[in-house]
Amino acid sequence: MTSRRDFLAASAAAVGAARFPTYARPQPGMDGTTVLFQGDSITDAGRNRSRTGANDIAALGSGYPLLLAAELRERHPGSDLQIFNRGVSGNTVPDLQARWQVDTIALAPTILSILIGVNDIWHTRAKTFSGTAATYETAYAALLATTRTALPGVRLVVLEPFVTRVGAVDESWFPEFDEYRAAAARVAKRSGALFVPLHEMLQELGRSSSPAYWAGDGVHPTLAGHQAIAHQWLRVVKLDDR
Amino acid sequence: MTSRRDFLAASAAAVGAARFPTYARPQPGMDGTTVLFQGDSITDAGRNRSRTGANDIAALGSGYPLLLAAELRERHPGSDLQIFNRGVSGNTVPDLQARWQVDTIALAPTILSILIGVNDIWHTRAKTFSGTAATYETAYAALLATTRTALPGVRLVVLEPFVTRVGAVDESWFPEFDEYRAAAARVAKRSGALFVPLHEMLQELGRSSSPAYWAGDGVHPTLAGHQAIAHQWLRVVKLDDR
Repeated sequence: MTSRRDFLAASAAAVGAARFPTYARPQPGMDGTTVLFQGDSITDAGRNRSRTGANDIAALGSGYPLLLAAELRERHPGSDLQIFNRGVSGNTVPDLQARWQVDTIALAPTILSILIGVNDIWHTRAKTFSGTAATYETAYAALLATTRTALPGVRLVVLEPFVTRVGAVDESWFPEFDEYRAAAARVAKRSGALFVPLHEMLQELGRSSSPAYWAGDGVHPTLAGHQAIAHQWLRVVKLDDR
Repeated sequence: MTSRRDFLAASAAAVGAARFPTYARPQPGMDGTTVLFQGDSITDAGRNRSRTGANDIAALGSGYPLLLAAELRERHPGSDLQIFNRGVSGNTVPDLQARWQVDTIALAPTILSILIGVNDIWHTRAKTFSGTAATYETAYAALLATTRTALPGVRLVVLEPFVTRVGAVDESWFPEFDEYRAAAARVAKRSGALFVPLHEMLQELGRSSSPAYWAGDGVHPTLAGHQAIAHQWLRVVKLDDR
């Protein structure tokens, strides 16, 4: 924490002294970093899937991966930081497994960020899928074990599945949804992944305004929700401290 | 500057202490604020022009207006902050004038942010438009005078036109381009607008990496460039201090 606090204190001084961005100098330790965002529609966020290159605005969609890419690329201009988004709307864990070799392993990320789970429960409730928190946990753990074998040096980041109580989501989702969240946390711990807590954060944010302010239909974040996720990601992943 | 420095110091402490966003509490003084971003392709940034509502991700495009909207909406959850983008690719000052009543005055912004000028010189160089720094200055000043009359309480923000020396832009743009920049600064001062300096910032950023890192074709920002613009806007506009 000390180094981060000193860094922010230095940044505060720089804001007072200069009109240039706080992070407008090369940061150490980022060369050769490839960040890949994986997941479902929350990650996809309307990306243009015909565009496959790194750092491409259209290819990144309009959600938290874009917001994080903007922040990270601005902070690290001296690094060859490559950022990809391969989220696909509607995906469950088995959907990720089916496209993992092409959409994840082949890209050889050094940081792999995954947000998956809400469709595993949502589609089960809609009877277009059949799963439980236990099958979710088993399949997710297997996916990360496969990933560790294929990419031994990868840094894994698991984002907690979240909902807000509005739109498609009501109390009947609970406590089952909490079991999925707990499963994701266990999967992260066992695989040595960083875990980004999101659900309680969004409940607290919802109480300070409204749940719909952060995710209008209970599942898909608004722009404010995407920014809250992006900031939480940065708080946990702390790329600058590597 | 003191309040901003104290604020950042408090933020640094909060990062250490909490897992929730720094700005996850209502900020005072933002109720009823409508922010409108106006300009050319740099502002447009691929927005879906069939979507006209406030705070709509697709309607905001993928450039600095989206990045600012994400940040401002996250910071001010208790406020009914409305954010619009009405940038249109290819626009010059006369193009803004032609659509000003419908696309600006009718939206009654309380904060109006404008970035315009690069096409006034670029299209003149390409012989599809005919202008000079003097005609740009006169027309831009008249546009802002009209705006002040129609919206007496509006806070105006003028973004400095900028280029990077790469792609479509070479030394033959200078010193004429500098005359356009100086004209924009004078227009801002005379109309009582906040002025967001961008050109020298991007030159300095370009020296620390490459000009193309910030604007690949010399005119249109990359994602990193959009974030640098967004952060500079926040530094100057300081909405929280109102």
